[in-house]
Amino acid sequence: MSSEQDLGITESKQHNTGEWYAEVVRKAGLVNYGPDGMSGFIVTRPRGYALWEAIQSELDGKFKATGVQNAYFPMFIPESYLEREKDIVEGFDPEVAWVTHGGHDELEERLAVRPTSESIIAPYMAQWVRSHRDLPLRVNQWCSVVRWEATETKPFFRTKEFLWQEGHTAHETHDEAWEETMLRLQQYADLYEELLAIPVLEGQKPDHDKFPGAHTTTTIEALMPDGKSVQAGTSHHLGTSFAEAFDITFADEDEATQPAHTTSWGLSWRALGALIMTHSDDQGLVLPPTIAPEQVVVVPIWQEDTKDEVLAYADSVADELSEAGVRVELDDRDGRNPGFKFNEWELKGVPVRIEVGPHEVEDDEITIVHRPDGETTTADREGVAETITEQFDEVYAKLYAAAEETLEDSVREADSREEILGTLGRHGGYVTAPWCGDEDCEEPIKEAIAGEIVMCPFDDEEPIGDEASADSDVTCAICDEPATQTAYFAKNY
Amino acid sequence: MSSEQDLGITESKQHNTGEWYAEVVRKAGLVNYGPDGMSGFIVTRPRGYALWEAIQSELDGKFKATGVQNAYFPMFIPESYLEREKDIVEGFDPEVAWVTHGGHDELEERLAVRPTSESIIAPYMAQWVRSHRDLPLRVNQWCSVVRWEATETKPFFRTKEFLWQEGHTAHETHDEAWEETMLRLQQYADLYEELLAIPVLEGQKPDHDKFPGAHTTTTIEALMPDGKSVQAGTSHHLGTSFAEAFDITFADEDEATQPAHTTSWGLSWRALGALIMTHSDDQGLVLPPTIAPEQVVVVPIWQEDTKDEVLAYADSVADELSEAGVRVELDDRDGRNPGFKFNEWELKGVPVRIEVGPHEVEDDEITIVHRPDGETTTADREGVAETITEQFDEVYAKLYAAAEETLEDSVREADSREEILGTLGRHGGYVTAPWCGDEDCEEPIKEAIAGEIVMCPFDDEEPIGDEASADSDVTCAICDEPATQTAYFAKNY
Repeated sequence: MSSEQDLGITESKQHNTGEWYAEVVRKAGLVNYGPDGMSGFIVTRPRGYALWEAIQSELDGKFKATGVQNAYFPMFIPESYLEREKDIVEGFDPEVAWVTHGGHDELEERLAVRPTSESIIAPYMAQWVRSHRDLPLRVNQWCSVVRWEATETKPFFRTKEFLWQEGHTAHETHDEAWEETMLRLQQYADLYEELLAIPVLEGQKPDHDKFPGAHTTTTIEALMPDGKSVQAGTSHHLGTSFAEAFDITFADEDEATQPAHTTSWGLSWRALGALIMTHSDDQGLVLPPTIAPEQVVVVPIWQEDTKDEVLAYADSVADELSEAGVRVELDDRDGRNPGFKFNEWELKGVPVRIEVGPHEVEDDEITIVHRPDGETTTADREGVAETITEQFDEVYAKLYAAAEETLEDSVREADSREEILGTLGRHGGYVTAPWCGDEDCEEPIKEAIAGEIVMCPFDDEEPIGDEASADSDVTCAICDEPATQTAYFAKNY
Repeated sequence: MSSEQDLGITESKQHNTGEWYAEVVRKAGLVNYGPDGMSGFIVTRPRGYALWEAIQSELDGKFKATGVQNAYFPMFIPESYLEREKDIVEGFDPEVAWVTHGGHDELEERLAVRPTSESIIAPYMAQWVRSHRDLPLRVNQWCSVVRWEATETKPFFRTKEFLWQEGHTAHETHDEAWEETMLRLQQYADLYEELLAIPVLEGQKPDHDKFPGAHTTTTIEALMPDGKSVQAGTSHHLGTSFAEAFDITFADEDEATQPAHTTSWGLSWRALGALIMTHSDDQGLVLPPTIAPEQVVVVPIWQEDTKDEVLAYADSVADELSEAGVRVELDDRDGRNPGFKFNEWELKGVPVRIEVGPHEVEDDEITIVHRPDGETTTADREGVAETITEQFDEVYAKLYAAAEETLEDSVREADSREEILGTLGRHGGYVTAPWCGDEDCEEPIKEAIAGEIVMCPFDDEEPIGDEASADSDVTCAICDEPATQTAYFAKNY
């Protein structure tokens, strides 16, 4: 179904990031928009879903290796359950989709389509946990959730329904719950850095921007090429608020009843949005070899008189790669010229291209082209699988280095309201400033240029305490009261 | 959280199958019932979900090896889309859950929570298919669907929300769509026979019981121990009805516009219900080694003076099995006696138990016990991994043979209404009879004893045609008109 005009990206990543992104995800065949009457929903096509499957597989392996089991809870939550944790209902009520009828009958109690599942999982945890021997308890589910936000749809970044995983755990002590919170945050950071070639910042959300009911919300933040930050994954220390609302208690070693300390943590297909937006360019999708559905495309280039030998050669190269476990595609289509094929596979984000023509056959070589920058090298035909594996590492390193450089160049310090506003307005990225912890001091930045405090770095792997900077004489950049932490201001998704 | 009284199954499989089943799924830790206000929903606990993951993994591999790609479509379907295929709306309207509000606002058009996704997938197929070169098109999604049936909940068999996969394909010709329909049916049959140790019958549904809008609905049916049939998976040849309702057309080789021929096929967690009900017994869950989360439990049996050597021996056995890729659990708990452990692991369905005590250590042997029938043998300690793998095959063969014998003994012929009623009423199982194809002839059986025609065998791998028995002088067992097919009557889930 591709025709010539479908293959060109017409928008500019640099000048028109939003439109460019929308064009890339559509023309690379990743998504379609939802049907009439369902704005805010997307259809994830096989090429897009394959990326999500790669993330699932990687993350699911990490979870299972660290004591997490998958489970499945109902997609609906009775309104009365949602109301049991007061912060949850306040936090999510405006954006819940409500089921009111089953068949021809109105329901006695309306049901929320889950916006997140703490309120339906916690009561079961309360049944399953009796003794300290039942702890820690760790469950995870892969599912879709619905949040009825009215803002503009951006595939993977902002949709009314999205795919994610949500992990939920219960522990004996506050500290164990904190360790769990940080373990999951670290697994998210590793996913970004080792699979998606994206460096991230780790920290915690300001108190006024925590998950409803949480003690501490930790976050990883990734910088997008338009200078905005994306909340790339969050892990919440919920303290005992859900345990108290839903009666998750256990008998400790002295048979005394104690409330459990719970956590929850989620990573959504927004990771795909970050992946696509970070690496792709004006030719289309760019993917790291770690996650690309096709890692290599072999394009034979022939004239009529060399066709047979070139095709046979290309075929043997593709076969050898395939046998070595490389995800390889041989594009031997007759009706398309090499230039068309190059464009199409560039659009689709295949990280490495191998070209073989009569010269390569004669010299027993292959020509290798890197998708991200077009770097071209030749290599011996012999040992092609090993050569290509090394090329994957090179391509990955290039992508990561470029993203890291952008990030490092985009963190700037400021010491006053004016400086925060000026720097953020001019450069985007992150502007760091000492902060007192009061929401009021974020307000003027938010109002003036929609900049927010997206995170504050941890205090030596520990949550920021009020006493953190008691000895310090650093003052808040906004109000001049004593600063307790460093705030990272940014515009965000 | 297990206490002594949680470990015993008190109901009888033979005399009280429904209650026994409910007790097994609960006490083996597979499910909990939904919360108040959500009857008909279940929570799938990790031990239950692990079984679903095993089915997913097996089936997903089969699909991908035969040209299917996964995708994800919105969980909601606008009412107007559901109405575009008239049979679909008539078929599902009474059992649809409706979303009417998003946040605080009433929606302009209400949205169905998908009962199945033909109506939202077909319009996208229409966008993706342009030319015969785009065909065949095959997508699948793993998701949950909702059907608001008011009948009694039976975990995995009958729940308002259930997990399943739904595959959707489009083809150039009627015959190619039929081949696809039968390929998927065969993959379902293979799943039951090769992973779940359950033999199935293959055939097609009577015309009056087809999927709404389908040309032919094919089914696999499994016999449950209470003599009822369960529809274990269905694969539908949809003909051109969805293509016509949603405009899925393609340009053929002569550039003429043709409607596509589509199929859909689904298998749900009902497969888990069939698995559990078929093999389990009055001691609890029984699982084939192919799917059991723990395939072997090693139980050391010691006195104080032999503890160290027995534990070391048990440990080495478990290690060797684990290294060989066997899913093994070592139960070296101190506070429980061997009898308690045996009961607990029997309840949980671990297919093979290895007992090691001082005698085994002395003789360099292990004692092996099969869960399904308690058969006990000893074997050399050396080569334990190979020995145990053979035992898995034996246990699987036992389970399959028992289910096959039950099935074979439960198919009986009948030649008249009275005989059908008498045989079905007395024995359950399947009663076969020549049938004219008219729904009216099923009515008296349905009314009298709730028996239905659950399937009719294929006519030599082809759908049954009207001319099938034109030459035959066999007459319908009910009405004495010429018979066109053999009907399998059964009570069903």
